[in-house]
Amino acid sequence: MRKNIKYMGGALLALAMVSPAMAKELTLAEQVTANAANDAFVFNTLLFLLGGVLVMWMAAGFAMLEAGMVRSKNVSMQCLKNIMLYSVAGIMFWAVGYNLLYGGPEGGYIGSFGPYSWPDPGDSAGGDYSVASDWFFQMVFCATTASIVSGTVAERVKFWPFIIFVAVLTGVLYPITAMWQWGAGWLAAAGFSDFAGSTLVHSVGGWAALAGAIVIGARSGKYVNGKTVPVLGSSIPLATLGTFILWMGWFGFNGGSQLVFGTVSDAADVSKIFANTNLAAAGGVVFAVILTQLLYKKIDVTIALNGALAGLVAITAEPLAPTALESIIIGGIGGIIVVLTVPLLDKFKIDDVVGAIPVHLFAGIFGTLVVAFNTAKEITLDDGTVDTVYTFSASQLGTQALGVAAIGAFTFIASFILWYILKMVMGVRVSEEDEVLGLDQTEIGVPSYPEFVQG
Amino acid sequence: MRKNIKYMGGALLALAMVSPAMAKELTLAEQVTANAANDAFVFNTLLFLLGGVLVMWMAAGFAMLEAGMVRSKNVSMQCLKNIMLYSVAGIMFWAVGYNLLYGGPEGGYIGSFGPYSWPDPGDSAGGDYSVASDWFFQMVFCATTASIVSGTVAERVKFWPFIIFVAVLTGVLYPITAMWQWGAGWLAAAGFSDFAGSTLVHSVGGWAALAGAIVIGARSGKYVNGKTVPVLGSSIPLATLGTFILWMGWFGFNGGSQLVFGTVSDAADVSKIFANTNLAAAGGVVFAVILTQLLYKKIDVTIALNGALAGLVAITAEPLAPTALESIIIGGIGGIIVVLTVPLLDKFKIDDVVGAIPVHLFAGIFGTLVVAFNTAKEITLDDGTVDTVYTFSASQLGTQALGVAAIGAFTFIASFILWYILKMVMGVRVSEEDEVLGLDQTEIGVPSYPEFVQG
Amino acid sequence: MRKNIKYMGGALLALAMVSPAMAKELTLAEQVTANAANDAFVFNTLLFLLGGVLVMWMAAGFAMLEAGMVRSKNVSMQCLKNIMLYSVAGIMFWAVGYNLLYGGPEGGYIGSFGPYSWPDPGDSAGGDYSVASDWFFQMVFCATTASIVSGTVAERVKFWPFIIFVAVLTGVLYPITAMWQWGAGWLAAAGFSDFAGSTLVHSVGGWAALAGAIVIGARSGKYVNGKTVPVLGSSIPLATLGTFILWMGWFGFNGGSQLVFGTVSDAADVSKIFANTNLAAAGGVVFAVILTQLLYKKIDVTIALNGALAGLVAITAEPLAPTALESIIIGGIGGIIVVLTVPLLDKFKIDDVVGAIPVHLFAGIFGTLVVAFNTAKEITLDDGTVDTVYTFSASQLGTQALGVAAIGAFTFIASFILWYILKMVMGVRVSEEDEVLGLDQTEIGVPSYPEFVQG
Repeated sequence: MRKNIKYMGGALLALAMVSPAMAKELTLAEQVTANAANDAFVFNTLLFLLGGVLVMWMAAGFAMLEAGMVRSKNVSMQCLKNIMLYSVAGIMFWAVGYNLLYGGPEGGYIGSFGPYSWPDPGDSAGGDYSVASDWFFQMVFCATTASIVSGTVAERVKFWPFIIFVAVLTGVLYPITAMWQWGAGWLAAAGFSDFAGSTLVHSVGGWAALAGAIVIGARSGKYVNGKTVPVLGSSIPLATLGTFILWMGWFGFNGGSQLVFGTVSDAADVSKIFANTNLAAAGGVVFAVILTQLLYKKIDVTIALNGALAGLVAITAEPLAPTALESIIIGGIGGIIVVLTVPLLDKFKIDDVVGAIPVHLFAGIFGTLVVAFNTAKEITLDDGTVDTVYTFSASQLGTQALGVAAIGAFTFIASFILWYILKMVMGVRVSEEDEVLGLDQTEIGVPSYPEFVQG
Repeated sequence: MRKNIKYMGGALLALAMVSPAMAKELTLAEQVTANAANDAFVFNTLLFLLGGVLVMWMAAGFAMLEAGMVRSKNVSMQCLKNIMLYSVAGIMFWAVGYNLLYGGPEGGYIGSFGPYSWPDPGDSAGGDYSVASDWFFQMVFCATTASIVSGTVAERVKFWPFIIFVAVLTGVLYPITAMWQWGAGWLAAAGFSDFAGSTLVHSVGGWAALAGAIVIGARSGKYVNGKTVPVLGSSIPLATLGTFILWMGWFGFNGGSQLVFGTVSDAADVSKIFANTNLAAAGGVVFAVILTQLLYKKIDVTIALNGALAGLVAITAEPLAPTALESIIIGGIGGIIVVLTVPLLDKFKIDDVVGAIPVHLFAGIFGTLVVAFNTAKEITLDDGTVDTVYTFSASQLGTQALGVAAIGAFTFIASFILWYILKMVMGVRVSEEDEVLGLDQTEIGVPSYPEFVQG
Repeated sequence: MRKNIKYMGGALLALAMVSPAMAKELTLAEQVTANAANDAFVFNTLLFLLGGVLVMWMAAGFAMLEAGMVRSKNVSMQCLKNIMLYSVAGIMFWAVGYNLLYGGPEGGYIGSFGPYSWPDPGDSAGGDYSVASDWFFQMVFCATTASIVSGTVAERVKFWPFIIFVAVLTGVLYPITAMWQWGAGWLAAAGFSDFAGSTLVHSVGGWAALAGAIVIGARSGKYVNGKTVPVLGSSIPLATLGTFILWMGWFGFNGGSQLVFGTVSDAADVSKIFANTNLAAAGGVVFAVILTQLLYKKIDVTIALNGALAGLVAITAEPLAPTALESIIIGGIGGIIVVLTVPLLDKFKIDDVVGAIPVHLFAGIFGTLVVAFNTAKEITLDDGTVDTVYTFSASQLGTQALGVAAIGAFTFIASFILWYILKMVMGVRVSEEDEVLGLDQTEIGVPSYPEFVQG
């Protein structure tokens, strides 16, 4: 950043560089058009970069949430898994994922293979946004999917099989189903709607986690003689911090998914998305807290945290169309889903350490289906003008269910097979002895809190 | 975010959507004006969104600060209170607060009742910024007020009475006094000046906390036989993290309060606010550290943290007019106030767990009064041109004192009555037995650090 | 933020305020030019402010990383040092540093003395960005240098000598060598290239830390009878959080160093910097994890964290020119450097508590030298057009080595002398007795985790 040199004639430069057509003299009208296109490009790119940084930050949120929810003997391992999965996801999404997602034919089923290559410095490769900013934004979404899985299978999955699963999930599985919708594939053609990924990101992570929980099995000591033994997390404040980080990052997740920011209309939409996203999370917390108070006479703080996350997941499929009140209710139902389904999983002896399946899968399915209640429909008013109203559509509900089922079936089956192969080839869980000792000691060698005497 | 579809003709769209007047052909001059208005709208909205996310993040900062400052037997409860209060504040500010703040007559005393409703997707409702972005930004300010209270009354207040207090504070009390100034009410007409809320946000939180501390009473064991028994917080690093988060969020708090960002002049002002805000916090730390070293021969790290916060509170009423040196001094005096008044509160047996009253109330009053030393005054130079100088004004000092007193009286009395009613109706503090056991066990059921043996 | 009043005629105002030339009537062409210059100013300023906040946040990242890596008896002290050093750096960079960095002659060796004063509110002082936003951005870079030092010399350095060292480092030493390059000094004239500071920031911090480690000496008990005794950090999750914070902040560090953001070309460059920065960090993690697995059969999580940081440091000297694959490899070599050089330091009994010297000095030197492999060169294609290719240049490698050596020699020698003077005058390390008790008890008086029984 050699300031004095870089700034020579900066403002003039700003005008001069808006267009390669600059070689010839522009008319004033052409210059006005070029300036507007330049500003739109910068605004759109800025949205991707800011949104991307906020979603990248969610990787830290998952790391803290999970570090707080596992026992101290597995905290170092959980930290390692989280920073490693984010790294692997980034590399895989460059090497395979991006082109698999976006390199396919319209209405198609799969993209193309090969690493993504972005243009030389200073070259935007045309278009309305920087392609590298788009890659960055899409990459962090892909990584989120993997973060969801790591929480469910914590405390007993082996490190390397988990990392191999993550590599395939982020490089192949996620991009394939995401292509169906965001790559303008067959689900998009069918009219499926999932604004920021209740299904494409959160349910996909949830299905992959569910398959893992089944193949790997529950932690030893979790279900004894038909009873569920509660396992307490090591640090509630870290779990709380993680939840706040995720809440913060979600503004980038949902707001950034507007994809454009250069016009009054788009900036207004992104703003409404921010407000609705916040209200849905708030609804999730309040409904979950009230319900646990009524059911159990005490308020499990981890349920409140998961209530926030479930509210966020639920609004993610359509954060723009709902009114404020609808957003609170959609998020609130997300919170209720968490309260009611966490015990349900235990009934089936599916051991989900952090509650990721209720939060990301169940609330994600609900959020995707509820989109049908806000289907945009054009109506002609008495004075002849056309207005858009948001109303229930049974056919949209069918399309939403189709998308949920198709993506769920593909992801669950593919994940199950992958986990199963890993189990056969190299084993997916540590020995029971190692599980009792904790993964920090057996696989990492670095205890998480070496100085604190543990009870 | 269905990329391929959304982007069709994006740049052309960007040009076409700047104005509803688009239906008719625009002249080039009209187009230039429309483009500039479009960009100003997007910049202003962006300032609200970014500022809002940073202030939302302050909710996490308060949560970590307080989780670190209470004893481990109350940490889960403090986490729950913080995420719940932020949620309740968001819903109340939608249901009642916003219109109560902004729906009143110029020079008036109170706004209108009723939930706020923002426009349909894509509709900005006119103006120079997105109304939903404004709602989001104002909402997080409202929530900050509640965050301040939770720290003071920690470790003995019951959960539900606290939440009811928060609901009334954020839905009614805060919006009423904020209306007097930011809603263009009578204090604004009187010439009161409080740029980002040293009084409107921080003192209001402080007064509400003070009333709570008096009505609820001190923690059992805090004042024994006329002596103050030190109660150590459970985690200094979490308190430090919380302070850094608050410092970071304050750039949004003060910078965003410029409200506009689309011009050279406004961008330059926001920048100066960032620099001054940082210097004031730095001054608070350095002065507090030096003073505690001199007074006590050791440096209490919690005083250094509160010094940063007091410096931030002190500069908040006017972060733009001071010079760099003045900013350091204003912040530094904030830091000194903390060092000197923390023991003072103990003298009156007012038990403020995290020191929120010195930080937010005392430094907030100081910051509001010191604005009078930077009153803008137009002077005519010898060459006939008019310049603005910033100088002391006794009449401004009177107006500042009026605002401090009026808002303080209203908030303290209303809060006192509310806390008192809650005490009568449902009780505001837990039993002494429960207090000894800790709220995590009695109200939550989830210990914060279950594995660590506690001394 | 008195909304109703501020917004009167906002959009018109936006147009009217773009230029002081507004007094006279502008032609439409002049208006178009003025609007474009206005937008470029706002975009550039925004980049500085956003980048600055992200780099400020890195101060919290260092605080958490170090709080997690020291033993619990020194955690409060480490928190205090980190918030104090950031405060002192901010004040010193205002009082001395900024003008020393930017107030010098082109091709020169040193800037001018005296505090920096920014313009009155609303006055941008001309140019293409707000000068206060530039100050803010440069200030946080300066503070980063000091954060690097505090990790290495933790657990035995006295508080006040450390703070005095920080004051001189941030006010004088860093600005002098940074002037050589970013102040358009002699190294810039010589063709040295260091985009965001692999050498100017990270190596400088590393050299200062190395000098401190030598003068202060190793912690007692670290090297016994020729053997290195491992000292475990108190909290792996806090160290992980710190690493994620640093990773997040690095987008501001490298992306903001583009310095301009208002054009398609600059926005595209910043985007590519974000993507490359992320890939380099990912490469650092993956390479470090694989190498430790191969070498030690277990994966030290702290090595993975430092791998991410070394990857980030390595890409910092040139985050724009490399391809994606090159970025992964550059970052990956950074990770390998950490794995191989951490044991090396112990061989020389240089006690670096957090591994800052391998991460910031060794990877910083590597990153600066590797720039020579991406030297821009203009070539003429067969069709006569001129293109830029990035290729190895031996002469550039020489210039890079010159910069590394010159800045290294100056910083190491000056730091060594300064540490040595501090040792002679007031002593730089605590007594062995105090070291055993821990600095929290002897210098702070506030234990970091008072309730946890420590083993």
